[in-house]
Amino acid sequence: MTFWEKLEQAARRNRSLVCVGLDPFMGKLPDCVKETDRPFFEFNRQIIDATCDWVCCYKPQAAYYAGADRDNELKMTIEYIHERAPEVPVILDVKRGDIGSTAEQYAAEAFERYAADAVTVNPYMGFDAVKPFLDHADKGVIILCRTSNPHSGDFQNLVADGVPLYEHVARRVRDEWNYNRNAALVVGATYPEELSRLRSICPDLWFLVPGVGAQGGDLEKVVISGCNSAGNGIIVNSSRGIIFADRSEKFAVAAGEAAAKLRDQINSFRFRQS
Amino acid sequence: MTFWEKLEQAARRNRSLVCVGLDPFMGKLPDCVKETDRPFFEFNRQIIDATCDWVCCYKPQAAYYAGADRDNELKMTIEYIHERAPEVPVILDVKRGDIGSTAEQYAAEAFERYAADAVTVNPYMGFDAVKPFLDHADKGVIILCRTSNPHSGDFQNLVADGVPLYEHVARRVRDEWNYNRNAALVVGATYPEELSRLRSICPDLWFLVPGVGAQGGDLEKVVISGCNSAGNGIIVNSSRGIIFADRSEKFAVAAGEAAAKLRDQINSFRFRQS
Repeated sequence: MTFWEKLEQAARRNRSLVCVGLDPFMGKLPDCVKETDRPFFEFNRQIIDATCDWVCCYKPQAAYYAGADRDNELKMTIEYIHERAPEVPVILDVKRGDIGSTAEQYAAEAFERYAADAVTVNPYMGFDAVKPFLDHADKGVIILCRTSNPHSGDFQNLVADGVPLYEHVARRVRDEWNYNRNAALVVGATYPEELSRLRSICPDLWFLVPGVGAQGGDLEKVVISGCNSAGNGIIVNSSRGIIFADRSEKFAVAAGEAAAKLRDQINSFRFRQS
Repeated sequence: MTFWEKLEQAARRNRSLVCVGLDPFMGKLPDCVKETDRPFFEFNRQIIDATCDWVCCYKPQAAYYAGADRDNELKMTIEYIHERAPEVPVILDVKRGDIGSTAEQYAAEAFERYAADAVTVNPYMGFDAVKPFLDHADKGVIILCRTSNPHSGDFQNLVADGVPLYEHVARRVRDEWNYNRNAALVVGATYPEELSRLRSICPDLWFLVPGVGAQGGDLEKVVISGCNSAGNGIIVNSSRGIIFADRSEKFAVAAGEAAAKLRDQINSFRFRQS
């Protein structure tokens, strides 16, 4: 089964467009997991147990594991998701981008070493930096387009031939890079007008939408602007809003409740729309 | 001492603008190291011993270690350089780029976990994705501008306000991102005209120049186009041309000779120019 088939199945089964970002940070972990041998894994395991019926996918951010020298706990986390919730796919958020022979190594990192189902990549270096990922037809390749951060417009908003850079990226992905029907775009929740514009340009692409919750994106606008005509097509990522919803020993229960609540809120806007 | 002070000192001491790219790949390693417990480290150690008098820096490409699940050998390699050749700085080639809080984790990965002196980063997400690196004033931050790969022009050559995207990046780095005097640009050897243009726009920035050798960049044009008025300002990276110059048990001697030869070739063009 490809990443997208798996995603669509999980989204249907759990009636959910929620992605939980697994971004553990030692300073924010509850004491009860901080003191274990593998705090990131232990934290994630309990979060996964509590949320796996309310989500369509998980998205660990590789930087949090790399910065803390805990790659092994990233690997264990993804293995655990595959065992505990085999119907829920995993996006490894790495935003890699490098020349072809090097990108092949990064594809090996994501798809073999970590057994992720999908990966995020950076388009700045052009097609040959993305192709080694796209060639894995069963894997998802989610390309940065319009990101959610405050200075994302520095270059993404530059207008060339009457069209901003991020729209050039979207068109290129739609017209040329999606030859295996496995490409998608990262479009931040903080720019709903641009999300809407990108939906009209790319009616059939999935968008990974970070930036609701802690980053301030308006959920209703995101759902209305981002969903396709079937009320699908967006993966709404929330990290801190779910995993750090409560920082006591009840963190996992709180995360499950936050994930369920986000799912229901999204669905209320989806169903109102359709 | 900052990265740039260290680099300038090594460049002067070794009369060299050569950077050796430490990109080991299991399929290309000589049998005599392939059979050891830590083949990447063992290979690098011998390469470092043989080349450290002919270079101004080293540049391990993180992807090769990540793809092969050999991060520990990357760490050992950088530690070994700091011990064996403490005057020679290390650029960790990671090309990271992510939102601020995540970029801080990547900065911790590069500067704390791996103890690199400098790092490569991707500008697509804008200032707040690069700032966590730039804020380490003693570290070098080398930002992708015009890369050497075949499809690098897909977006980098898009013209906005009369200027290609890569030039917007260069101007932004020159005017705004270099507040700690620790920023530089990646400019591929395969586009000498653009290298020349960027040198005229940014007379005081250092350029990391990949793409000579295996990727086909013309060395003479690179030196003439890229050096600043003092015959400095470029770091010429060669990976495969040096580390895989010979694949027998004499690989290290051959790497030393290849590094010395590249150094001398570059110097012949530098000195002819000035």
